[in-house]
Amino acid sequence: MNFEHSPKAQDYMARLTAFMNEHVYPVEHDYYDYLDSCENRWATVPMMEELKAKAREQGLWNLAFPGSHGAGLTNLEYAPLAEIMGRVMWAPEIFNCNAPDTGNMEVFMMYGTEAQQEQWLTPLLNGDIRSAYAMTEPNVASSDATNIETSIVRDGDEYVINGRKWFITGAMNERTQIFIVMGKSDPDNPNRHLQQTQILVPKGTPGLTVERALKTFNYDDAPIGHAEIVFDNVRVPAANLLLGEGRGFEIAQGRLGPGRLHHCMRLIGCAQRSMELACHRAETRSTFGKKLSEHQSVREDIANCFCEIEQVRLLTLKTADQLDKVGNKEARDLIAAAKISTPLTVQRVIDRAMQIHGAGGLCQDFFMAEAFNYARWCRQADGSDQVHMMALGKQLIKRYAS
Amino acid sequence: MNFEHSPKAQDYMARLTAFMNEHVYPVEHDYYDYLDSCENRWATVPMMEELKAKAREQGLWNLAFPGSHGAGLTNLEYAPLAEIMGRVMWAPEIFNCNAPDTGNMEVFMMYGTEAQQEQWLTPLLNGDIRSAYAMTEPNVASSDATNIETSIVRDGDEYVINGRKWFITGAMNERTQIFIVMGKSDPDNPNRHLQQTQILVPKGTPGLTVERALKTFNYDDAPIGHAEIVFDNVRVPAANLLLGEGRGFEIAQGRLGPGRLHHCMRLIGCAQRSMELACHRAETRSTFGKKLSEHQSVREDIANCFCEIEQVRLLTLKTADQLDKVGNKEARDLIAAAKISTPLTVQRVIDRAMQIHGAGGLCQDFFMAEAFNYARWCRQADGSDQVHMMALGKQLIKRYAS
Amino acid sequence: MNFEHSPKAQDYMARLTAFMNEHVYPVEHDYYDYLDSCENRWATVPMMEELKAKAREQGLWNLAFPGSHGAGLTNLEYAPLAEIMGRVMWAPEIFNCNAPDTGNMEVFMMYGTEAQQEQWLTPLLNGDIRSAYAMTEPNVASSDATNIETSIVRDGDEYVINGRKWFITGAMNERTQIFIVMGKSDPDNPNRHLQQTQILVPKGTPGLTVERALKTFNYDDAPIGHAEIVFDNVRVPAANLLLGEGRGFEIAQGRLGPGRLHHCMRLIGCAQRSMELACHRAETRSTFGKKLSEHQSVREDIANCFCEIEQVRLLTLKTADQLDKVGNKEARDLIAAAKISTPLTVQRVIDRAMQIHGAGGLCQDFFMAEAFNYARWCRQADGSDQVHMMALGKQLIKRYAS
Amino acid sequence: MNFEHSPKAQDYMARLTAFMNEHVYPVEHDYYDYLDSCENRWATVPMMEELKAKAREQGLWNLAFPGSHGAGLTNLEYAPLAEIMGRVMWAPEIFNCNAPDTGNMEVFMMYGTEAQQEQWLTPLLNGDIRSAYAMTEPNVASSDATNIETSIVRDGDEYVINGRKWFITGAMNERTQIFIVMGKSDPDNPNRHLQQTQILVPKGTPGLTVERALKTFNYDDAPIGHAEIVFDNVRVPAANLLLGEGRGFEIAQGRLGPGRLHHCMRLIGCAQRSMELACHRAETRSTFGKKLSEHQSVREDIANCFCEIEQVRLLTLKTADQLDKVGNKEARDLIAAAKISTPLTVQRVIDRAMQIHGAGGLCQDFFMAEAFNYARWCRQADGSDQVHMMALGKQLIKRYAS
Repeated sequence: MNFEHSPKAQDYMARLTAFMNEHVYPVEHDYYDYLDSCENRWATVPMMEELKAKAREQGLWNLAFPGSHGAGLTNLEYAPLAEIMGRVMWAPEIFNCNAPDTGNMEVFMMYGTEAQQEQWLTPLLNGDIRSAYAMTEPNVASSDATNIETSIVRDGDEYVINGRKWFITGAMNERTQIFIVMGKSDPDNPNRHLQQTQILVPKGTPGLTVERALKTFNYDDAPIGHAEIVFDNVRVPAANLLLGEGRGFEIAQGRLGPGRLHHCMRLIGCAQRSMELACHRAETRSTFGKKLSEHQSVREDIANCFCEIEQVRLLTLKTADQLDKVGNKEARDLIAAAKISTPLTVQRVIDRAMQIHGAGGLCQDFFMAEAFNYARWCRQADGSDQVHMMALGKQLIKRYAS
Repeated sequence: MNFEHSPKAQDYMARLTAFMNEHVYPVEHDYYDYLDSCENRWATVPMMEELKAKAREQGLWNLAFPGSHGAGLTNLEYAPLAEIMGRVMWAPEIFNCNAPDTGNMEVFMMYGTEAQQEQWLTPLLNGDIRSAYAMTEPNVASSDATNIETSIVRDGDEYVINGRKWFITGAMNERTQIFIVMGKSDPDNPNRHLQQTQILVPKGTPGLTVERALKTFNYDDAPIGHAEIVFDNVRVPAANLLLGEGRGFEIAQGRLGPGRLHHCMRLIGCAQRSMELACHRAETRSTFGKKLSEHQSVREDIANCFCEIEQVRLLTLKTADQLDKVGNKEARDLIAAAKISTPLTVQRVIDRAMQIHGAGGLCQDFFMAEAFNYARWCRQADGSDQVHMMALGKQLIKRYAS
Repeated sequence: MNFEHSPKAQDYMARLTAFMNEHVYPVEHDYYDYLDSCENRWATVPMMEELKAKAREQGLWNLAFPGSHGAGLTNLEYAPLAEIMGRVMWAPEIFNCNAPDTGNMEVFMMYGTEAQQEQWLTPLLNGDIRSAYAMTEPNVASSDATNIETSIVRDGDEYVINGRKWFITGAMNERTQIFIVMGKSDPDNPNRHLQQTQILVPKGTPGLTVERALKTFNYDDAPIGHAEIVFDNVRVPAANLLLGEGRGFEIAQGRLGPGRLHHCMRLIGCAQRSMELACHRAETRSTFGKKLSEHQSVREDIANCFCEIEQVRLLTLKTADQLDKVGNKEARDLIAAAKISTPLTVQRVIDRAMQIHGAGGLCQDFFMAEAFNYARWCRQADGSDQVHMMALGKQLIKRYAS
Repeated sequence: MNFEHSPKAQDYMARLTAFMNEHVYPVEHDYYDYLDSCENRWATVPMMEELKAKAREQGLWNLAFPGSHGAGLTNLEYAPLAEIMGRVMWAPEIFNCNAPDTGNMEVFMMYGTEAQQEQWLTPLLNGDIRSAYAMTEPNVASSDATNIETSIVRDGDEYVINGRKWFITGAMNERTQIFIVMGKSDPDNPNRHLQQTQILVPKGTPGLTVERALKTFNYDDAPIGHAEIVFDNVRVPAANLLLGEGRGFEIAQGRLGPGRLHHCMRLIGCAQRSMELACHRAETRSTFGKKLSEHQSVREDIANCFCEIEQVRLLTLKTADQLDKVGNKEARDLIAAAKISTPLTVQRVIDRAMQIHGAGGLCQDFFMAEAFNYARWCRQADGSDQVHMMALGKQLIKRYAS
């Protein structure tokens, strides 16, 4: 057992931190100012393209993939990097490491045909286009995949798709070119994990309508965004099928392990930065004759932040290591544990840090309120806390009951 | 001891509920749609003026004042009404019962000269103009009034005001005509509660600039809004003084008791409605083969919501009763207790209700996210949780230590 | 609505407080010292008999019954008295107000025949004997009454009882003369609430064995105690039946409403006293150059204790009032809420108060650790937290889902 | 980074687990039965001596010391072993790994003269005698070492000790032969960390009286016990001085790092076993028509236990690794974090596990209530939660404020 990052990881950490210090923090607010004053919130922000070019130049590009498609880092090595990126809400895209594109690229890597990879994976890896993953539906509790109602029906050489999806991240963005759609091709299959199929729907396919932008706590996450979209007799060629009919659930399982963990890693960055900001604030404000930092309750709040951050960080690191070593399925208890623990912990840490900031802590001058929104949102994304606790609890009882 | 509302209160409750059912809930979302598409988010919403007229016609107007200026209800009788109004974020203004105007009207009632009352109180009572209360400053922890840096200096027949304020609710609104400003006229007075003065600054006075709108969790609370404003050598006549030089702290104390409690009452309405929505949701969604409402954890969540809401409601009602009977100062322990307990409890209740709603629970289709923002914000407004715990804890130790 | 106790209640509060101050607090530790050094921990403590005599003399006797059997106080009037008694763990018996005897006396009042009342109720009201209520079983989750396995079978003019019970409060005490036993007479009845029967078993009946004393957190609650007992072909005359065959569940329901609330009332006394002790301690200890009472975190802890105590107190009072006005069944939501909220809140309050006391806070020099044990225990007694949340949640969802 | 235990640690884990399975769990309750029926609760339990002999035979002896005095395991390697021992409350002594003896042995190793080592360390390492560490005082908040009032005054060739101590673990035990006493030799030294001195007082020295056994939650921890003791003009030779006058604080600091961590390790074993017991219970009990394990809330409770245990375990392991690599002082932030987080987390985990067990969960049939007492107690032992949060928060603010 050993708690030091590999030399390779440490090298990337140093270079990434330097990049953030030099290029990102100084323009953090400019990015929001641009969005507030631009004509189209869903268009590419020029600053982003410049930063992407710089990052790519410096080899800080596609860091999330263990294999040959990127930097070749393990999940364990990627974890501290995702944490560093997570310290600015819009930073991960600079390094082509943002959700849902990383997860979608993995889908193409693992399950795409060569033709599908050439058409969609290559431009995604280059950061030239963006993608969306259409799973959640407004009318059913979609964390239970057997509830999904969108239909994918074979009709000659084509598939016909009908359904309504929401919270489809990236769907608002004008550069998003491809939708990976989860639906049911065989709703009556007695094995409820063979009913689902995933298929590719390019932007602009007739019948595909992006209806509206959804906001969480009033954040629209522009220019990426979360959309409600409708598939009304959308027709795509059979070649757009991913992996095979009835294998949609299998793809979803394969995709979500690392994705869930990436959110945890970035959230830890949010929490760590919030704590650091709170320390700074505590030292520079005074009430009732002494600095905030001299109030015992403020010290306790900060100490608790540290304890909780360190704990979810270690849990996430161990989980990443297991993901590397035994894979998605064997590591599922730890993935669930990280998924259950991290967003809730981070929400609590940020809440404390906001409180130490006074009224200002909730406003746009700090990144905390948006980070809080991210943490709160992650308690629903990729399966709610409750769904993961159900699965984990069931598994543990089975293990220890005998 | 008796836990039933007075017949008068019950009559108002019934009429107010009927008004909400008939006139407010059906257009709840139209209001936001109007704001999203209108040209000026800070202008009056036409729907609001129509609803105000209807409410006034029905005698549902100025319900918050115990005395002769409104319905003559006690704080205890007003509490369930504020709760009902609180169920829709923008509803209180319909009944001329919104912050900060109710508090400001109370300032005029208690401390205004006849001329001041005629000029500002009358149109406020009529709902013709809006007002702002300028206390919080960006550069200091303003919950400690002795930190305030804005200066109010006598110069002949005028006072000259210099300073910067933020989170000035109402300041963005185009109908806001008058600012009550807290500053220091005697910063070196050894009695640190005699340093402050409050003074009236009409909109449009040279040197008064509204710089920007502040958002909390990205909500701008249009068309009321929270602004950052600057006073740069603002000059007003000496007649604009409120009560007297050095009596600003006294005014602040008198104003904040009922104001804090009104927030609690409305927040309880937010929590109650969130719980009701969660009950509805739990019965209409299914996961893993059964309705959400059949999962034991959902039942526990709902049960806990009920327990917690009922407790802060009772605490708020008892506090209102004490406010009526022994006044602001004598009731200060209970006011602090309600102020400490209610926003945090309501935040927790809404968090649970959002979680039961799945991803949708955070979006604009439901009122919960905005209500959460309101609850979270109230943990800072009118003194942070910590400031009130400090005062209450000190007081209790003094009482029981001997 | 009105938050003042009735003059009658206030009079009893004053007299009871005076009695506690004069006769109970001064000998609080003597009682434990006697038990620690006596030969038989399950025998009557002489001091108790003297105090009972004094209390009876002063009319502080049988205060828990609304009707003609005692002081004729409502549940609402009794609440503050039970709180006062709750401040010393062994005090309720002084006033003949201790569990399980009060609940058992109510069973006799409501469901006993005249003969049963004469034989058992009269000496119980006089404090001459003690009683036990045998419901919980070691082998099944007894909070679900349909799980109960003890059998009560008619055999001619007798009933034959077989089964094992545990946590039978009072069963260890040498003066306990009568056991009210819950069992199943009709285990196959399709209506699962008509399977149960309650019957009287006098001490000394052949086949009834008290096997051992159970401890919670190592407290044996001597001389009352909680026992594991066995019924091995115990035979009692048919006249010992309570109310009728198949009506055992009905009796249990009728008995538990006020009983659960009495625990809440006493627990509030535990919490209130703990907070007061913590205030005293905070003012008399110093660390790191200042009094504990000057640490902001201590003030926050005390403030939170006050807020939480006041809330469960108000909830308990409202519930008592509903119990008086609409009865057990109609008040069941509030009874559940009080039962869910109070023990957990009190446990938390005492935990804080213990922490403020340092190491000593957990030891026998203070009453807090034993009071903590009582609060923790009440989260299981008379139905676990979870059972009550299940029922309350279900009920609320039904109410609000439509 | 790597999360696997060393082969050496894994070997010890396997052997220790086998020992526990074969020799300890089967007689877990016999130990308590012996104590309940023996004449002298403070005498050696014969079973213990037999188990010690067996453990020593198998090389499972003195595992806690990194150096040459025992198995030569690092703190990181010892952590999982202490966890395994922690699963039975009285097991650590079997392996000569119990508090306070391990800590006291370390004091002798680090600071003892050769003569002191020969006289006291050798028999301690052999498990022939026991020792006590006398620091905490009843009259002052002793977590602030500058508060200590016991005096150690040089008088010729002797030191004279006067003072009162309590919660002196081991002092009740009849085999305890030596007391390490912390007092003040130079109370007026302006450097408040040079006022303290530690000195050795053998049992039986005139003037040393063991006054009484202290209980926490009514547990007396026999036969080890916690005592209140008095030093009344106790005289010991100057050679009994440890390290030097004025170096008592230094010794305390050196002793407490590993000691605090050992408590954390054992507590994690308590929590892990409690969770396992809860899983077993959940599968074997039914309420309302289904097994406890099928209730979603029970699954959530179990899942949360796992998440929380895994987090404090990882935190404790990382801290142990830091202790090994950079030492006590450099690792102080992590030691504080582990000390703050573990007892509170373990208390919460056990509380949940007890609740899943129903009424029985609090009684002597399970080890949980006693383990809860241990966790609760550790929130005070070796510095309260608050003291450690103060130090950690202060340190963090200093680090991040700039």
